[in-house]
Amino acid sequence: MTELNQRIRLAARPVGIPKPEDFLQDEVPIPEPREGELLLRTLYLSLDPYMRGRMSDAKSYAKPLAIGDVMVGGTVAEIVVSKAPGFRAGQLVVAYGGWQSFSIAKPRELRVLDPDAAPVTTALGVLGMPGFTAYAGLLAIGRPREGETVAVAAASGPVGATVGQLAKLNGCTAVGIAGGPEKVAYLKTIGFDVALDHRAGDLRASLKEAVPQGIDVYFENVGGAVWDAVLPRLNTYARVPVCGLAATYNATKLPEGPDRSGALMGQVLTKSLLLRGFIQSEFYEALHDDFLRDMTRWVRDGKVKYREDITEGLERAPEVFAGMLQGRNFGKAIIKVAD
Amino acid sequence: MTELNQRIRLAARPVGIPKPEDFLQDEVPIPEPREGELLLRTLYLSLDPYMRGRMSDAKSYAKPLAIGDVMVGGTVAEIVVSKAPGFRAGQLVVAYGGWQSFSIAKPRELRVLDPDAAPVTTALGVLGMPGFTAYAGLLAIGRPREGETVAVAAASGPVGATVGQLAKLNGCTAVGIAGGPEKVAYLKTIGFDVALDHRAGDLRASLKEAVPQGIDVYFENVGGAVWDAVLPRLNTYARVPVCGLAATYNATKLPEGPDRSGALMGQVLTKSLLLRGFIQSEFYEALHDDFLRDMTRWVRDGKVKYREDITEGLERAPEVFAGMLQGRNFGKAIIKVAD
Repeated sequence: MTELNQRIRLAARPVGIPKPEDFLQDEVPIPEPREGELLLRTLYLSLDPYMRGRMSDAKSYAKPLAIGDVMVGGTVAEIVVSKAPGFRAGQLVVAYGGWQSFSIAKPRELRVLDPDAAPVTTALGVLGMPGFTAYAGLLAIGRPREGETVAVAAASGPVGATVGQLAKLNGCTAVGIAGGPEKVAYLKTIGFDVALDHRAGDLRASLKEAVPQGIDVYFENVGGAVWDAVLPRLNTYARVPVCGLAATYNATKLPEGPDRSGALMGQVLTKSLLLRGFIQSEFYEALHDDFLRDMTRWVRDGKVKYREDITEGLERAPEVFAGMLQGRNFGKAIIKVAD
Repeated sequence: MTELNQRIRLAARPVGIPKPEDFLQDEVPIPEPREGELLLRTLYLSLDPYMRGRMSDAKSYAKPLAIGDVMVGGTVAEIVVSKAPGFRAGQLVVAYGGWQSFSIAKPRELRVLDPDAAPVTTALGVLGMPGFTAYAGLLAIGRPREGETVAVAAASGPVGATVGQLAKLNGCTAVGIAGGPEKVAYLKTIGFDVALDHRAGDLRASLKEAVPQGIDVYFENVGGAVWDAVLPRLNTYARVPVCGLAATYNATKLPEGPDRSGALMGQVLTKSLLLRGFIQSEFYEALHDDFLRDMTRWVRDGKVKYREDITEGLERAPEVFAGMLQGRNFGKAIIKVAD
């Protein structure tokens, strides 16, 4: 083959929103799979907020990327060469190939896709990691009961939109928060009872007016100013699954005072709140089979809708990623890498 | 009767630690029980940190006291007059009579004590609300597993000492934090594996050295600087039952910045922490019978030890209460009101 492997690597630890020079693009020979491995050609690359965390060297649940590492990311790919029993060239898989056009994988790192069950890109969104994050966090931690009120921010994104629709399937009132009138209008079309624009003035006041009954489950994937507005509206015994804090990922230092961390603990105490951080992988063994079965049916039956924001060309990943961190995408951010 | 009812009422909302002039002492005629009620003579009054919260008008889980109200509090009392079927004069009960020498109660507000089962004052401590707080919070929220490490502050107090000893009964390493060498020495005598003095220098460093394995359950009843030292030592999946924030009850304004509330949420996320506020009453129906059965046996068998700090004279309650908020008591703070 004369084709090369196009790669995007981490060039520098970003300060704030990643800039083009924080990435390094290069082309190298396509790697050779060893016995038991597969060579994959990337078709689609998923862009997700958690990647910003991997670019920093702050201590977290996952090791940071080293400078020079290929950026990580979920992918939909085609098997080009299989040296692993049970897999054959031409099969489509969901893998973790990263920001590159070819990758090597071991069987335990991928899952074969049935392209007839659903469009393959859904394996990066509603039927993939974001969808499972919504499913596991809402059901296992949020535990919504019929008649309760569930709120979520970044509600037009793949996690938030799924949380809201699962809340409706569980007999709850769904409150979505998003940025801008277009996204807010979209939320109503997928079943949210209340849709609020966090860019349109005083979110705290509009929550108070639109959600007088208070919030029983707040699915936290944003943090920052939205959390500040939601916290006073939480009801006693509210549950807060915390799967992301996208608004703070680019922060370069602690915000100015006063220090409200003690007041936050005071709210936890006086309202008997539950806060629980989680990564979806914690629930994989217990819930992923149920998730795939349930969600595939709901998507097919139109009970859970999804929206994708697909950009063509691996080389555009850095700019699309930076835009996503600023809320510029509308739906699941995906890069189309190859046909 | 010519005897009068001695009362201590709230005179003003305290700023910081309550001062003598925040209370009003008076004497009024002894109240008359109506049909279905009982007249109780207070023998012992419990002093507990939560009372500071009731003196403020900040929104909380319980209504604040009004200015002029008799201070609330758990009591051990003797029935003087019974107009309720099934109760007779002379019986000892645990009740919620408040800071006064006589009170009126309804049957559902009290529980008859067996003075042969344990010293009656234990109904205000290890066998009462503080003991049940420790039992319910540790077992139902903290869920300690054998081999894990459980830490608690105010560890010589009735909640903390019970948490530590229950941790040992569950096969855990118990870490106690208290103020001053005398209390720290006491912790070792009741079975704590590690006992640290938060007044003796850098608690964060001493926790790191003495508890290198990290903390799996932190029973939070203090907040403030101890929490700041504990948070970096929490392990992934650590559980934090939050039953009190005594260090902050007297705060008059938010501390200076930077604002660390976002960083706290970041810790919740990256370590998959569970924070859960609670009041023991939430678990009363589910667990209180088990608690009384288990704890009465453990106390009788010497498996759970307790310590009381008894002061004679209702009129001393304000000063003892203020001292307790500053850690001056050593063991369960109790006022002996009458023989």
